[in-house]
Amino acid sequence: MTDKLIIFDTTLRDGEQSPGASMTRDEKLRIARQLERLKVDVIEAGFAASSNGDFEAVKAIANVIKDSTVCSLARANDRDIARAAEALAGANSARIHTFIATSALHMEKKLRMTPDQVLEQARLSVRFARNLCGDIEFSPEDGYRSDVDFLCRVLEAVIDEGATTLNIPDTVGYAVPELYGHFIRTLRERVPNSDKAIWSVHCHNDLGMAVANSLAGVKLGGARQVECTINGLGERAGNCSLEEIVMAVKTRRDYFGLDLGIDATQIVPASRMVAQTTGFVVQPNKAVVGANAFAHASGIHQDGVLKARDTYEIMRAEDVGWSANKIVLGKLSGRNAFKQRLQELGITLESEADVNAAFLKFKDLADRKSEIFDEDILALVGNDTRTGEQEHYRLVALSQQSEMGERPQASVTFSAGTQEHVVTSSGNGPVDASIKAIESVVASGAELLLYSVNAITSGSTESQGEVTVRLQLGGRVVNGVGSDPDIVVASAKAYLAALNKLHSKNEKVAAQG
Amino acid sequence: MTDKLIIFDTTLRDGEQSPGASMTRDEKLRIARQLERLKVDVIEAGFAASSNGDFEAVKAIANVIKDSTVCSLARANDRDIARAAEALAGANSARIHTFIATSALHMEKKLRMTPDQVLEQARLSVRFARNLCGDIEFSPEDGYRSDVDFLCRVLEAVIDEGATTLNIPDTVGYAVPELYGHFIRTLRERVPNSDKAIWSVHCHNDLGMAVANSLAGVKLGGARQVECTINGLGERAGNCSLEEIVMAVKTRRDYFGLDLGIDATQIVPASRMVAQTTGFVVQPNKAVVGANAFAHASGIHQDGVLKARDTYEIMRAEDVGWSANKIVLGKLSGRNAFKQRLQELGITLESEADVNAAFLKFKDLADRKSEIFDEDILALVGNDTRTGEQEHYRLVALSQQSEMGERPQASVTFSAGTQEHVVTSSGNGPVDASIKAIESVVASGAELLLYSVNAITSGSTESQGEVTVRLQLGGRVVNGVGSDPDIVVASAKAYLAALNKLHSKNEKVAAQG
Repeated sequence: MTDKLIIFDTTLRDGEQSPGASMTRDEKLRIARQLERLKVDVIEAGFAASSNGDFEAVKAIANVIKDSTVCSLARANDRDIARAAEALAGANSARIHTFIATSALHMEKKLRMTPDQVLEQARLSVRFARNLCGDIEFSPEDGYRSDVDFLCRVLEAVIDEGATTLNIPDTVGYAVPELYGHFIRTLRERVPNSDKAIWSVHCHNDLGMAVANSLAGVKLGGARQVECTINGLGERAGNCSLEEIVMAVKTRRDYFGLDLGIDATQIVPASRMVAQTTGFVVQPNKAVVGANAFAHASGIHQDGVLKARDTYEIMRAEDVGWSANKIVLGKLSGRNAFKQRLQELGITLESEADVNAAFLKFKDLADRKSEIFDEDILALVGNDTRTGEQEHYRLVALSQQSEMGERPQASVTFSAGTQEHVVTSSGNGPVDASIKAIESVVASGAELLLYSVNAITSGSTESQGEVTVRLQLGGRVVNGVGSDPDIVVASAKAYLAALNKLHSKNEKVAAQG
Repeated sequence: MTDKLIIFDTTLRDGEQSPGASMTRDEKLRIARQLERLKVDVIEAGFAASSNGDFEAVKAIANVIKDSTVCSLARANDRDIARAAEALAGANSARIHTFIATSALHMEKKLRMTPDQVLEQARLSVRFARNLCGDIEFSPEDGYRSDVDFLCRVLEAVIDEGATTLNIPDTVGYAVPELYGHFIRTLRERVPNSDKAIWSVHCHNDLGMAVANSLAGVKLGGARQVECTINGLGERAGNCSLEEIVMAVKTRRDYFGLDLGIDATQIVPASRMVAQTTGFVVQPNKAVVGANAFAHASGIHQDGVLKARDTYEIMRAEDVGWSANKIVLGKLSGRNAFKQRLQELGITLESEADVNAAFLKFKDLADRKSEIFDEDILALVGNDTRTGEQEHYRLVALSQQSEMGERPQASVTFSAGTQEHVVTSSGNGPVDASIKAIESVVASGAELLLYSVNAITSGSTESQGEVTVRLQLGGRVVNGVGSDPDIVVASAKAYLAALNKLHSKNEKVAAQG
């Protein structure tokens, strides 16, 4: 058996299914570039048949990414699979990942199909996919809760049809390591042609054990691919965290004895990019990528405790890409320095006009903020690409005031399509007043599910605030992110960004992996 | 072997050691009351000898808590142990938890002691402790990285001296489940008198496996106590999460076969209280207590996906205390209704005058915010007790204004001791301007490590903002939390709260468990 562990990142597919984490094509493209820098083996770029938007995102990523295999999810039917193949046509290395549920509960209640029908559909779908693509992954959804005998029949059949990777999901996060590891081993032992495919694990974190379950699937079960996401992003309690898997395998190489292709120094940049893009914050006590994960990286001195570094640290912060905040650019930086930094950050703007526009925003920010960090640049460019072509609402001007004992007031000027509105409102705070002003025109009817702010950089009170607003309307959940040194302005930008996403009506078919 | 799993919560001791998570006596007391409602078996209330403040906190908790055992940490020396016994004198059920490092690395580099010296000190300390208290826990710090032969000698010796619980910490979060489980089993098999004590596990989450490691220690190793914290709070990547341990053992009772005394419906209230008190946010994709952990609990409708609830959910949100936001009080609620709600929330104010003062604040808030939730009440009372006796700086008035294109201005009136200051400043946002105004007088020299805002309740733009500010000065890290419907006012309150904590100079001895 090979001693290489394949890292399959599904941040852009299963991660994106988190309510509110949906991303635009440009956002997904930027993250895919970072995943390539991270050297993940496979990037699951989306679910091409789920929407035109996702089709375009998969296609764009397939056309650009060279070093990683690009994968699209597809339900086990010809239309989905053909659509995936079409989106992946430009890829250097492509994979189609098709799935169908095999647990009694899912077959009966969700699919309303008999086991024999499911088996036949799995077989035909893999056969169809294999004629379009040489690299086929098959997942029996809710595999861990499926009947073993039936599951073995399905897996044997799809290997016969040419599936090259078999992925066994613990869809609902029900597994414990020992049992999941033995489950994978049992399947590999009982499926006669099991050595013709690579076995993969896909675990959810509902009981907090996604990483340990995945690694038991590898160590005890013999799986050689792990499906995971940056920051453990994903529905409910999320997916297995890429950063934890990678660092566990590296730190405990004595136990796992496996090689990885990953460049771990790209982990923290990837984590920041995903958090900033989706608005899903990382808690300080998150392993590897949390602000407190390495005491000294967060600028905290533990005099007297850390007499020797390895007394309490089993990893080095710099090995996963933590570095002290560096001032990268300032007021006097020129257009070339700015453009070069964009390139180093993996940001490709479409045209010189876009670079010029971004540079003007940069100069404006540098006038207000003396030190510009990478995070500031990401936020600045993010404000643009996040909304991109779908931008309907745009903030033009905002003024506000508050005084303790008085009711806060805000006046907001914004455009909606070609029309410009100037509206004033009061509220119980300046943010509330600004949002009420916007809603006095838009009357979206959306419900605010979440409002949060994080400083983009630490170490200075001059930091930009990054505001995340999550809205729900008619069953759809969207996140809007906005940043500005003025928290009220950032809030209005975030609110309008969320309204833009609601306005774009980019509906998707839901899938579970 | 018993089939009862003892839950030992160390939120108030190991959790509090997170940089910035330090709590006042009143805060710790309120959380201890919630832990008692949660029915944890043992509450580690603090480390009595580390500071006078922590001594007072342990003492106050020992005097009030009736249903849980109250424990204090103590280094393995007579002074620490005597101080712990003194703080615990009023407890219904008391435990002293003494520790000394046993790994070669820690003995050599931190303790500068030989193994024989460590063994002797462990023995003498447990002997001394046993004369003061019938319930003695012993931890060999960095136990998992210790030499097994030596560790067995130490453990045998302390059992001989009367230790009733042996806790084996994976201090640096280096373990994997299979190895840790076998490590505990090996110790239990090799220590001759091992059946005379209860074995305990204490895991850190640096590789994302604290929960799985702890449970392997229980299932494979035969441990019957798990040490854990609410929200997995703790240094670096934190401790094992109480909520994940509890729900894993309950959900997979088929595998673990263990009973718990825990009332799981108190988990979410405990999680919110700890997050609000410490300012350590919980990420949305956190198992059990994250906002997204249960899709339907966060108000998200997944039409078409959730044809049957158990298709994707292995736990019920209401079983862990998630409930829809309920309007609990409003403008017309009277003093009695308010007082009763305080009691239901476990908040005990010292005097009727304190109740009156809190009620006035409540009425003021109800004038500005039509719906008052439990979280609002916690924040309102928290603003008081968080600062309590140490309050040196206090916000009196604030006004601010900003307009895009102009430089934001703020005017802040605050008292410092008996003196009142009125200061005006500009900044690159209204929050920055307010903080600059305060610093123009205080000149603390503190560095801002973190600034974040969370809405206290969702579903309305009228929510209060809860601001967390983390400051560092001369190696000390403190969190300040402030809440107000006006985010700028909340920020100023949080900043002054952090300055108050820096001002209180409540130094502590550092310990690791």
